[in-house]
Amino acid sequence: MKIDSLDFFYLSMPEVEDIGDGSQDALLVRVTAGGYTGWGECEASPLTTIAALVCPMSHSACKPVVASVLGERLTQPSDIVRIHQKVRENSMDLLQSDHALSGVDIALWDLLGKMCDEPVYHLLGYKHSYSKVPYASFLFGDTPQETFEKAKRATQQGYKAVKCGWGPFGKNLQADIEHVVAAREGVGQENVLLIDAGTVWGSDVEVAKSRLKILQEQKVTWLEEPFHTSALEAYRALSNESKTVKLAGGEGAHNEFMAYHLIDYGDVGFIQVDAGRVGGLTSAKRVADYAFQKNVTYVNHTFTSHLALSASLQPYAGLEGHRLCEYPIELKPLAYDLTNDHLELNQGGEICLPEKPGLGMELNLETIKKYLVQTQIIVNKKVLYETPKL
Amino acid sequence: MKIDSLDFFYLSMPEVEDIGDGSQDALLVRVTAGGYTGWGECEASPLTTIAALVCPMSHSACKPVVASVLGERLTQPSDIVRIHQKVRENSMDLLQSDHALSGVDIALWDLLGKMCDEPVYHLLGYKHSYSKVPYASFLFGDTPQETFEKAKRATQQGYKAVKCGWGPFGKNLQADIEHVVAAREGVGQENVLLIDAGTVWGSDVEVAKSRLKILQEQKVTWLEEPFHTSALEAYRALSNESKTVKLAGGEGAHNEFMAYHLIDYGDVGFIQVDAGRVGGLTSAKRVADYAFQKNVTYVNHTFTSHLALSASLQPYAGLEGHRLCEYPIELKPLAYDLTNDHLELNQGGEICLPEKPGLGMELNLETIKKYLVQTQIIVNKKVLYETPKL
Repeated sequence: MKIDSLDFFYLSMPEVEDIGDGSQDALLVRVTAGGYTGWGECEASPLTTIAALVCPMSHSACKPVVASVLGERLTQPSDIVRIHQKVRENSMDLLQSDHALSGVDIALWDLLGKMCDEPVYHLLGYKHSYSKVPYASFLFGDTPQETFEKAKRATQQGYKAVKCGWGPFGKNLQADIEHVVAAREGVGQENVLLIDAGTVWGSDVEVAKSRLKILQEQKVTWLEEPFHTSALEAYRALSNESKTVKLAGGEGAHNEFMAYHLIDYGDVGFIQVDAGRVGGLTSAKRVADYAFQKNVTYVNHTFTSHLALSASLQPYAGLEGHRLCEYPIELKPLAYDLTNDHLELNQGGEICLPEKPGLGMELNLETIKKYLVQTQIIVNKKVLYETPKL
Repeated sequence: MKIDSLDFFYLSMPEVEDIGDGSQDALLVRVTAGGYTGWGECEASPLTTIAALVCPMSHSACKPVVASVLGERLTQPSDIVRIHQKVRENSMDLLQSDHALSGVDIALWDLLGKMCDEPVYHLLGYKHSYSKVPYASFLFGDTPQETFEKAKRATQQGYKAVKCGWGPFGKNLQADIEHVVAAREGVGQENVLLIDAGTVWGSDVEVAKSRLKILQEQKVTWLEEPFHTSALEAYRALSNESKTVKLAGGEGAHNEFMAYHLIDYGDVGFIQVDAGRVGGLTSAKRVADYAFQKNVTYVNHTFTSHLALSASLQPYAGLEGHRLCEYPIELKPLAYDLTNDHLELNQGGEICLPEKPGLGMELNLETIKKYLVQTQIIVNKKVLYETPKL
């Protein structure tokens, strides 16, 4: 079978707010081969990633992503690995191509799973899919009281782990202390508390260190992204003093190498991988294998739809000891309504991947239509991109 | 003074060939403030980088680059550093933004230089600009004989250093040996020979090692990009055995951190920085400072116009011991004719930066008009980008 079509759909809420909520728009990928359809999702900036798909060639190592995908043979996992490698080589100098590749790769695995009547995690080499403990991921409140209430509400909804991030955090030590104390009060002593600094400290180790005491006292499991993804020396320096608090990072990695570096040089305890950025499931599975081997815990990063959520869990579905998973709970309707299926918490407060072919998520075409952004790119009078028909 | 306008111009040769020649298209940046105009250039994929400039916001850390630049104050170097940081923070999740920022940053330094009536290297902190030894950079011939002739021609034109790269190199050991021997014969024993593998070996250390003997025998000064920019372990492993042949790499770095990693973890002897990718002159100067401190030699990477060439030399203009510079000699007319000024070899086979304000290069508007690619991006019936007026 050959890949017959590759289409990108740009979705957006009518208003996009200036907040750290990545569910306000989406770039959906649809790929078809032999009558089967696969879906994937890219992070982030839909327009820019569409351009990476269709742009004119600049030179031999800077080709549009579509050129390495359309017409390719697809019958087994090694075909996806081959296509993945072809994109990486042919689009090496096209920076955004890693994000475009990510959604395409996810869609290819979904398609192959449907073709083979297997869940993706099987195709990736896992026999079983183990349930994960989702942490409710939300923005810090504007006040400690609001943080407390958000955390409390999450645990009341059945979450055994909670992550607070971004918002006001990181700018003022005293305020940070109050927010962390409030968050711990909200989640209770028996549950897991995680803190996400959202790279707020750049590469400033000293200012990050000043937060370690309160994080240790409040038994925070990880401190996420104290620094820019590439500030490896800073990660290592902080890790040397963080004791019970492990560092977490990696969401910015746009290839597997960057994740390896955080493990090898940055000394993180948790490696967080966004399958929609790192190069799809092909790259994410490599990171999971590497993390397992290095005794580092893999965690998904995702803040969009349940299609992206299902995709993000497949690469470590078979790693029993890697228990936590990110689970955004403040999704915009665009993201939540994108799928008819959802990965809901079971009575034990855990989630399981669907035992269905591919990613196991049925798309809601009405949602796509509702939020579809009509887009057109014209170069020298030639229409390179136009929002495709559903 | 405030930044009044920021415009991108997409230029292309009528035909773009599937070869490793980056001078076939260009993305020019024009910025104006207080009646002054600055010019810069981004690498690569003009359409994708334009999208990064104008795309709709996805969330607070994924904003279009233009939003962090227009209207900003610009009167001194620290203003550029501030704008640079603002783009990095506001466009953190927009991968291509690093390439867009690069051209914008270059144009800002050019503009500030004109405003202050100073060459950019002065503003970057250097008192003197030292002449550099350009290496003629060209693709390997299809046959060793052709490689020999290209190398011979370059030395006859006055070059004291020659770099052969890409093309057939890296795929067959015996052919590689013949090409390297032919290149050395062409340049003669007295001149510098450099080899560029163009990441052909991915992260395969063994296959790279098999080339070391011939490179050592032929007194090759550096082996460039044996691996993917991020394959740091592979770089280090090869470096441990490369003896007289130093490794060179870094052109793929899209921020200063990636260059630091090649120095710290990859053990390169030469760090090659493309100012049009790494984050402009602001980031490139940081890499130059770091390299100097770590006893690693800085080299520019550039394969486009003399505007880009002048920009690429400014960050290490004042480093007297860092002698070599890349100097593409097979530029397409688009790239060569883009400027009225050119950095030509002097009688000693060296080049000097112009002692003029900014980057010291006058643009040729006729060339821009001739190769201008009319481009339009429409999102939800709103024209987000249209090729601007010259």
